[in-house]
Amino acid sequence: MQVQTVTIREATENDLEAIIALFADDPLGGHGDTNDPQALPDYRAAFRKIATSPNETLFVAERDGEVVGTFQTMVTTTLTARGASALIIEAVQTRADMRGRGIGAAMIGFAVEKARESGMRLVQLTSNAVRTDAHRFYERLGFSPSHIGFKMKLK
Amino acid sequence: MQVQTVTIREATENDLEAIIALFADDPLGGHGDTNDPQALPDYRAAFRKIATSPNETLFVAERDGEVVGTFQTMVTTTLTARGASALIIEAVQTRADMRGRGIGAAMIGFAVEKARESGMRLVQLTSNAVRTDAHRFYERLGFSPSHIGFKMKLK
Repeated sequence: MQVQTVTIREATENDLEAIIALFADDPLGGHGDTNDPQALPDYRAAFRKIATSPNETLFVAERDGEVVGTFQTMVTTTLTARGASALIIEAVQTRADMRGRGIGAAMIGFAVEKARESGMRLVQLTSNAVRTDAHRFYERLGFSPSHIGFKMKLK
Repeated sequence: MQVQTVTIREATENDLEAIIALFADDPLGGHGDTNDPQALPDYRAAFRKIATSPNETLFVAERDGEVVGTFQTMVTTTLTARGASALIIEAVQTRADMRGRGIGAAMIGFAVEKARESGMRLVQLTSNAVRTDAHRFYERLGFSPSHIGFKMKLK
C-alpha cells in the first residue's frame, strides 16, 4: 500500500524546481514548460503570486522525501446557489513513473476533504478532452462530467 | 444597434437584488436561487466576500438604468505555462427577455479585453453540458470546447 507513504503538504519555494520538472515532463499539456534555468525567474514570480494570494494554495505530494505530484486549489465565491463557495482544483500533475499508485487519488481526496471541512458546496476542475484516462479517474472519484470547459488562448 | 447602449461596470451592493433576480429566473441552473428576502443575508455575505477578494470582481451589464446581465471574473496564476495568469469567467447570466441583443457578447468581450490588456495567457469558463445554445455562443466568440468540466457536489 504505497499510497500510505504519500504526504500532501503546502509547497515551499524549495520545491519549485521539482514542481517545474513535473510540468516539463508532461507530453500532453503543451504549455511550453521547461527546466531551462532562464525560465526560472518567471516561475519564481508566479510562485510568489500564488503564495501571497489569499484564495490560492499550491500543494505537493511527497514520497520518500521526493516531490512526486502537485496540484493547486483556489477558493471562489459566487452569488449563485445563495452565495456558495466552491473549490477549484488546477494544475494537477503526478510524476510519470509514479502513476497508478494512488498518488493522484490522494491529492484529489485531500482537496475534496478540505472543501468539505470548509462547508463548500462544490469541487470543480477541468481536464483536457484528450486525457481520457484522467476522465475515468475523476469519475471514479465521484466527479460528474457535467460541463464543457471552454478556453480562449490570448497568446 | 441596441448593444451600443449596454454599459458594463463593476457591481455595487445596490445591484444585489437585481442580480439575484437574474439567477432566480434561470430554469436550467438548478442552483436554488431565490428572491425570498430570507435568503438575502446569505447573498449579502457572499457579495462582501467577492468585493473584498483581490482576485474576484463582480460585474453587471446595465441598459436604460436597469441591470440586464451579470458575470464574475477571477484572476488565477498557476506555475504551468511558465507561470502564466488566466482569467476565469463565472456566473454569466443575461435577463431572459433581453437575450439575443448582444448583451452576453458585450459582457464576455469586456472580460476578454480586460484579460488581454493585463497580459493574461488564457480566458476560461465552463458551461453546463445541456446549455447547447451557450456552447454555440462561446464558440462564435472564439472559445474552444477543449476541456471537460468535472464537478462534485458536496451538499
